[in-house]
Amino acid sequence: MIHRLSVKTGKKDEMLDLTALVKSVIRKDRLMEGTVTVYCPHTTAGLTINENADPDVVKDLIMRLNEIFPWNHPGDRHGEGNSAAHLKASVMGFSQTLLVTEGELILGTWQGLYFCEFDGPRNRTCYVRTSRDQIGGE
Amino acid sequence: MIHRLSVKTGKKDEMLDLTALVKSVIRKDRLMEGTVTVYCPHTTAGLTINENADPDVVKDLIMRLNEIFPWNHPGDRHGEGNSAAHLKASVMGFSQTLLVTEGELILGTWQGLYFCEFDGPRNRTCYVRTSRDQIGGE
Amino acid sequence: MIHRLSVKTGKKDEMLDLTALVKSVIRKDRLMEGTVTVYCPHTTAGLTINENADPDVVKDLIMRLNEIFPWNHPGDRHGEGNSAAHLKASVMGFSQTLLVTEGELILGTWQGLYFCEFDGPRNRTCYVRTSRDQIGGE
Repeated sequence: MIHRLSVKTGKKDEMLDLTALVKSVIRKDRLMEGTVTVYCPHTTAGLTINENADPDVVKDLIMRLNEIFPWNHPGDRHGEGNSAAHLKASVMGFSQTLLVTEGELILGTWQGLYFCEFDGPRNRTCYVRTSRDQIGGE
Repeated sequence: MIHRLSVKTGKKDEMLDLTALVKSVIRKDRLMEGTVTVYCPHTTAGLTINENADPDVVKDLIMRLNEIFPWNHPGDRHGEGNSAAHLKASVMGFSQTLLVTEGELILGTWQGLYFCEFDGPRNRTCYVRTSRDQIGGE
Repeated sequence: MIHRLSVKTGKKDEMLDLTALVKSVIRKDRLMEGTVTVYCPHTTAGLTINENADPDVVKDLIMRLNEIFPWNHPGDRHGEGNSAAHLKASVMGFSQTLLVTEGELILGTWQGLYFCEFDGPRNRTCYVRTSRDQIGGE
């Protein structure tokens, strides 16, 4: 089943922890064994996994990304002027496939799944699909 | 089912929109609900998702990637001299899992799936596999 | 089924080829047609695919990544001082979905799946799940 999540970002660059939302989809679908794929249908926002214990980690990530991919670049041709956001989204990725076993999402102790806004604030969307493992033969 | 797509690139760096090819695989397999995984079996080309409306976006992406990952680097040891292409491919990724519902690929309004050539021109290959959701219990 | 792999890294930065381990999981699960998802539950280590023929390729990748994402950055706030490792892991990715057909992993001639250690040496873990394609109707 496909679930559509609404994500409201509040800053130009922001990493929002979607882990609780994804876990609630797994419970709702009663997925015990399988995978869950989270998909970002935007081109200036992406998805990644990273530490959700110390909030300074995501601050450092955003700061370093903005230095490597500066907002303004004399060579950019795209009229909207947000090519840096497009590139950062591609670098993080748009699709993340996570594993589920015994009804629980497999995540490391410090891991969370993040929605990465690179051209906010905006009202955004994410899709989540759970896929049950087929038990038995081919 | 596995589908093998041929991709012919015409430049050293190029982003080719594979969206129509992936959609035709979904129709051919009559996938209504599930996922589609696109896989790039090369090491100097990758796959990403990004805007397919303004062609300047992918031009800016290629231009910026080539600045961050310059072709020539005094520290490179790899004899073929294309380590930059290997790195750009890893940064974009080799495998993209997309979602399908009601027989349609879920893509944002401006999204397309791109084959990213970083050491062309070459004759390349991509694999596409559709996976049907299992309906019902475990 | 979920398989847990132990990965022992020996250096601060290291790319370890997991391909043989993933192939043995496919054989053990007798997966003929489907996908295999490899997941890294850490936040300072990731997964990527790249060349496994010339070992200089991964050396160049690590060297270039360390230049673009230097270990020390005056703007970092994270107390552990390893924000560069967190960022490199997000850039490489934590989850890789590979394709299997006729019992064989689809990999390019030169491709291998790599565990990317960015803050080692450590004892690490990876999860591997095989998913069988459902044959037949919805």
